[in-house]
Amino acid sequence: MLFKESVLVSIILTALEFVDVIVELPYNHKSLRVNYMEIQSVKGTRDFYPEDMAKRNFIADLWKQVSLRNGFAEYDGPIFEYLAMYQLKSGDEISSQLFAFEDRGGRMLAIRPEITPTLARMINQRINTLPRPLKWFSVPRLCRAERPQKGRLREFFQWNIDIIGVDDCLADAEVIFCAVDYLLQTGLTADDVVVKISSRKLIAAMLEYFGIEKEQLEKVYTVLDKKNKIPAETFEKMLEETIADKAKRQKVIKFMAVESLEQLEDFAGADKNAKEAIEELNRLFNYLYIMEVTELCRFDISIVRGLAYYTGIVFEIYDKSEQLRAICGGGRYDNLLADFGGPKIGATGFGMGDCVLGIVLEERGLFGNLMQENSPEYFVAFAEDSLQNEAIKLIARLRRASVRADFSYKGGTLSKQLKQASDSGAARCIIIGKELTQAGELIIKDMNKGTQQTVGLREFLDRLG
Amino acid sequence: MLFKESVLVSIILTALEFVDVIVELPYNHKSLRVNYMEIQSVKGTRDFYPEDMAKRNFIADLWKQVSLRNGFAEYDGPIFEYLAMYQLKSGDEISSQLFAFEDRGGRMLAIRPEITPTLARMINQRINTLPRPLKWFSVPRLCRAERPQKGRLREFFQWNIDIIGVDDCLADAEVIFCAVDYLLQTGLTADDVVVKISSRKLIAAMLEYFGIEKEQLEKVYTVLDKKNKIPAETFEKMLEETIADKAKRQKVIKFMAVESLEQLEDFAGADKNAKEAIEELNRLFNYLYIMEVTELCRFDISIVRGLAYYTGIVFEIYDKSEQLRAICGGGRYDNLLADFGGPKIGATGFGMGDCVLGIVLEERGLFGNLMQENSPEYFVAFAEDSLQNEAIKLIARLRRASVRADFSYKGGTLSKQLKQASDSGAARCIIIGKELTQAGELIIKDMNKGTQQTVGLREFLDRLG
Repeated sequence: MLFKESVLVSIILTALEFVDVIVELPYNHKSLRVNYMEIQSVKGTRDFYPEDMAKRNFIADLWKQVSLRNGFAEYDGPIFEYLAMYQLKSGDEISSQLFAFEDRGGRMLAIRPEITPTLARMINQRINTLPRPLKWFSVPRLCRAERPQKGRLREFFQWNIDIIGVDDCLADAEVIFCAVDYLLQTGLTADDVVVKISSRKLIAAMLEYFGIEKEQLEKVYTVLDKKNKIPAETFEKMLEETIADKAKRQKVIKFMAVESLEQLEDFAGADKNAKEAIEELNRLFNYLYIMEVTELCRFDISIVRGLAYYTGIVFEIYDKSEQLRAICGGGRYDNLLADFGGPKIGATGFGMGDCVLGIVLEERGLFGNLMQENSPEYFVAFAEDSLQNEAIKLIARLRRASVRADFSYKGGTLSKQLKQASDSGAARCIIIGKELTQAGELIIKDMNKGTQQTVGLREFLDRLG
Repeated sequence: MLFKESVLVSIILTALEFVDVIVELPYNHKSLRVNYMEIQSVKGTRDFYPEDMAKRNFIADLWKQVSLRNGFAEYDGPIFEYLAMYQLKSGDEISSQLFAFEDRGGRMLAIRPEITPTLARMINQRINTLPRPLKWFSVPRLCRAERPQKGRLREFFQWNIDIIGVDDCLADAEVIFCAVDYLLQTGLTADDVVVKISSRKLIAAMLEYFGIEKEQLEKVYTVLDKKNKIPAETFEKMLEETIADKAKRQKVIKFMAVESLEQLEDFAGADKNAKEAIEELNRLFNYLYIMEVTELCRFDISIVRGLAYYTGIVFEIYDKSEQLRAICGGGRYDNLLADFGGPKIGATGFGMGDCVLGIVLEERGLFGNLMQENSPEYFVAFAEDSLQNEAIKLIARLRRASVRADFSYKGGTLSKQLKQASDSGAARCIIIGKELTQAGELIIKDMNKGTQQTVGLREFLDRLG
């Protein structure tokens, strides 16, 4: 790719938009280079310095660990796919937030805003050889061209759990358990978070029962999904625009005010489809009871989910302060594989992003002292410059034996090196002094207790194995 | 983003380019959806099914482990940055391979083709608060619009190790050690791989000594870097185009034929700068000797590196079959932070991609049986359907206690479930039968030995903690 200098200047000026000091830009390459210091990261993206990375790893490592113990296998797809794949199936909100681009072959591509379409594509491509049921998870990096705000960034990580090929709501219960298992593992409790559960099948049955046309359902879902997320007047206005008939609208509003499963049975039990959906919700809650996680779960009819592809049980997890967007959202999507050209196979799953979750964990002080975990097990100090090579040799051997070990490049006095050992958070410091050259011995200092002991080098190395 | 249907059709047609069967596309949304099954992944990208993901994780988990034991802290940056950042500093080859796009704010962005510019930006942004030296690593996902071929894809993962703030070649030795530590850890040996080491400082000194102008150096590096990668005639022709003077050219060719450090001293020792560079190479090899990795390392003057920013020691690691591109490449880049508007601070590091490495590990059979590692520790089978809830309850408790556990959704006969337990690779199978309801006992079957033992449920749960 080649740019004229005038174009380059405009690119640089764009990059400078968030910078206060704008310097003069002469039309000449060399001077342009000077302005590198002004280039920032793109708004809505994050730099992960080691302390930030430790938090990201705390979140993601636990995602992986909990996935594995719940019997899920990890998969991943490409960071970009054909634009068409996202254009038609992801629902209006996601489709409008794509980072799309054309490659040099004229292909229209997009950075992935979610991984579910990729999952559907991958499964359909091997539909005849993959075993069933499939329990898969992924921790994709995703990008959406949203307006950055609290808990919402243009680039984020999202844990995805999916069970494909199980129609029974036991699978829905299992994915909900999995999310709860994770949240409890981070240290959060039923005082901090709540899983709100509803059913698209139920809502669809009741909307049809109220006389709303099938073709209208998707639009109505989008509005209902906004109920608790926007001011009441705005919601009513949106509903008015979607359901013109006042009588129908009032039925919908009354239905959406139902507060418990018991109340629901009185209200909706007359319709056969609704009755089935209620029976399924009861079965789901029974499974959650057996799994001993009902303390965190409750029925909440207002959960509808914005995405177009949900067909059954749906759920969202919220921080109880209710100040933040959902921590997690998911549900059953039985038609997606068929929509992508495959067979009709039941599927259920969820996505949990790292942004809102990170805020919640930070607020609760649950990250702990993460940097300490990767501190050296041994810091090797040398009493004289002439012993540096002995230190380097020992360090190399320690590392080859899978031991986290470090040393000082500059050397300097022993007390300076011990200070550096302490700063590094090392558990122990090995001191190489005249004891090594005279008697083949190392001094090992316990950095916490302050105690010292002498060990023969050979014996020490033998112990490393 | 909204598209007219005619545009949609052209997008779909693009997506269909790798598909044999082209179906008819009527100008109507609904019918377009039918063609999802034809959408493929983009050429040069990879789908990671669980067995592929296990290999990717084998490679990357070990990257992380070796980084940590060598004293490096993990960082990461955004997947896209301002295009300008890559446009001016990455060298012609990388700049020409950018996936660039304009966002809705009119910003020109690009998916990262390498992470070093991000590293420089991040360090410069906190130059006054970050400690020095810095030892940082990252495992970024990178994208380059290359022509896909063996060991070269459009999307890949690359291990990056960097030491910032150490001028002495001890740091260069340490990054080389780190790469070797990793390769040995995978099971590769000195029979499989070789680290070829040279010096940009040396080559620059000699080229200047031969009368080549400073401004020409970058172009000459690019040609010299190609020496072992293209046919001899093509190389000579390229060199002729870059160095017009025949006498100078012959000196360069003679110099590039030097085969050992000893021979080099005879040849280049006359020039002061070259002498310094040779002395540094000797010191480097002495450090590698102390670290006990010289068996894998050798001086090779043909290593020049394509990237513009190298200033000192440079190296590449090759599979000894010499059929593949480099596994790893790196070196010293003392000006990069200054080029990005920061202070002049010495830095050295390397990048190791997953594509060539993956081929080498696969060819040597070093991946092993990776899928087994994440198999369940317990599979829970139930002798009667009425006991399924007991199984679900136990499974939930096992998982909450950090134990990898799974069960059958379908249930069915005990022998069917035991077959499923065996297929899952589970180490042990817990059988829930009438012993539980009658005596509160579980049967635990060792799937490898085939032996069984009876354990009280309470005792078993207590042991989980």
